[in-house]
Amino acid sequence: MKQVTLNDTEALAIGAGILGTGGGGSTYLNRLRLDNEIRQRGRDVDIVQADDVPDGALVCAVGGMGAPTVSNEKLQAGNEIATALRALEDHLRRKIYAIVIGEIGGGNAIGPMVAALQCGLPVVDGDGMGRAFPELDMDTFMIYGLAPAPFVLADSHGNVAIFTRIASAKQAEEFARRLTIEMGGSAALVMPVMTGAELKATVIRDTVSLAKRIGDTVLDCRARSIEPAETVAELCNGRVLFSGKIIDVERRTVQGFARGKLIISAFDDFDKQLRIDFQNENLIARGNGQVVCAVPDLITLVSLDDGEAIGTESLRYGLRVAVLAMPAPKELKTPEALAVVGPRAFGYDLEFQPMAGDLL
Amino acid sequence: MKQVTLNDTEALAIGAGILGTGGGGSTYLNRLRLDNEIRQRGRDVDIVQADDVPDGALVCAVGGMGAPTVSNEKLQAGNEIATALRALEDHLRRKIYAIVIGEIGGGNAIGPMVAALQCGLPVVDGDGMGRAFPELDMDTFMIYGLAPAPFVLADSHGNVAIFTRIASAKQAEEFARRLTIEMGGSAALVMPVMTGAELKATVIRDTVSLAKRIGDTVLDCRARSIEPAETVAELCNGRVLFSGKIIDVERRTVQGFARGKLIISAFDDFDKQLRIDFQNENLIARGNGQVVCAVPDLITLVSLDDGEAIGTESLRYGLRVAVLAMPAPKELKTPEALAVVGPRAFGYDLEFQPMAGDLL
Repeated sequence: MKQVTLNDTEALAIGAGILGTGGGGSTYLNRLRLDNEIRQRGRDVDIVQADDVPDGALVCAVGGMGAPTVSNEKLQAGNEIATALRALEDHLRRKIYAIVIGEIGGGNAIGPMVAALQCGLPVVDGDGMGRAFPELDMDTFMIYGLAPAPFVLADSHGNVAIFTRIASAKQAEEFARRLTIEMGGSAALVMPVMTGAELKATVIRDTVSLAKRIGDTVLDCRARSIEPAETVAELCNGRVLFSGKIIDVERRTVQGFARGKLIISAFDDFDKQLRIDFQNENLIARGNGQVVCAVPDLITLVSLDDGEAIGTESLRYGLRVAVLAMPAPKELKTPEALAVVGPRAFGYDLEFQPMAGDLL
Repeated sequence: MKQVTLNDTEALAIGAGILGTGGGGSTYLNRLRLDNEIRQRGRDVDIVQADDVPDGALVCAVGGMGAPTVSNEKLQAGNEIATALRALEDHLRRKIYAIVIGEIGGGNAIGPMVAALQCGLPVVDGDGMGRAFPELDMDTFMIYGLAPAPFVLADSHGNVAIFTRIASAKQAEEFARRLTIEMGGSAALVMPVMTGAELKATVIRDTVSLAKRIGDTVLDCRARSIEPAETVAELCNGRVLFSGKIIDVERRTVQGFARGKLIISAFDDFDKQLRIDFQNENLIARGNGQVVCAVPDLITLVSLDDGEAIGTESLRYGLRVAVLAMPAPKELKTPEALAVVGPRAFGYDLEFQPMAGDLL
């Protein structure tokens, strides 16, 4: 993949939604913004392969921070990431060579492309999660030891904070979360800054291309009037865990996160149910009290008929859904990674039982 | 006043306590730290007059942020201000010429001198409040229009955040308060950065000298075995509002502030009472339901026998106190200032009735 053009954004948005496991923010709003930006500038988004970035060049990961329930209603100014990125360049007195997507899931796959056009920078084909996660210390950049500072937060009013010294990634998460809440519940995050060499050592490659491919598959199924879930699952080495109707949703926006659980009941047997817990993203799926899929493997609800992902902010009674389970990329399944993104890291007393295969 | 030496710190601490109106943090801990720093370095603190600072030189105000109830128990690392100041210099790629005390009240008068020794800088004879106030937008630098950004927060773990763009001083207060809470309830604040010309246009002059003079007066009274309250009041153009015993204290540490009220009863007549409301600092004194002194005029409780100020974190039943009322410096009584530090700014539906005279 060399560019993202107006012809790609629909597929990209669909695919990013599916990789979002319920989180990463709405793809709808961000896709509108990206289309608008491409049209207004008359330019496409340049994609660069991680291995083509010079070792000494500076790259920074970018994305939106906050609860999807908030960012869906509190509209962005649209230039927050670019503002944060320019503040970082000013602070470092150095130019950024390329943007890398912090998390490929949801709207967070697309917002960085808007910023890339605004700043005249290419976007790396890859990201730090291969999906979406609720906390900023949960990316491969932090897991594999890059420095959390400097990092930048910017809000829709133009306020900018640069954290220049930070004891740990977890500390960065706590400060950034707190400040994001004070900024109204959503903010742009630029973090971390890394060299090309560090990028190559830590990034999950080709996830922009994967998102596009997933979206293309969904669009193809729609064109052929078949339900997309099985086809998408196959493409991602996963399976359809469950199909049914959402019969219960419990969701609160607390401490800057959308937390809760939902229950899906099978069409043919009301008592056959799947329960999913989420914190911005879907974390654990249980059937009959047994765990059937757990984080970091991907759990995504898609609309049964059109394969569109359903974010945790959009869950409601009566939606007819398929639940996709997809294996996590291998970078998320090492012991170092599982310590940060495995079930125990989210408070579940549970050994991670990986699905067979890898996402990529 | 040209220097602060080991012979000055006791008087300075006593005077700063009295100007602290109950807040600004403990002078006790900060005086120990200052004495230690002077001894270890074998150097005194250089004091510079505001009018001797070159117009083009950079000056920054510094202090501690947080509730006095917290900073009294959560000990500082001791180098937070210096860390924040060096981070600011690194960010600006410019050297700071001198430190100015953000608020002359309480420990916040003395912490900046420790930092000045650590950084090898002089301290301006003056400050931004002429007393202590609970919020960072309540100094003459912000009131008279200096830019709130960049400002720096640093904590005892070495974490540093630089806010490079901020919409307003009030916004700075909200972000800094939130982050201070996340930093454990106390943090060092460097804010604002200003030129020598801006300093001269906004600073309240000679308040370090005033604090020293107040302290000297108290020490002199002690040496002559007389209660210091009346003599101090006279020096400050104020009066003793009330003498008696604290019979009730209500205090909670909420949203990063020590808030509450206290009641003092006269020795000779239990029903003769004075009630004082505080938010870190004493704000309003009422007798028989009538307001007898209100912010920004200074209300300070001192121990009846030795004239030592009693911080809002140290209030307790049974203390025998005199309540000093002292007129605010004139810089705090303009319409612009009263909009920020008058009774209404603290939520009291009350016109400010100034005491006669000015503090300086």
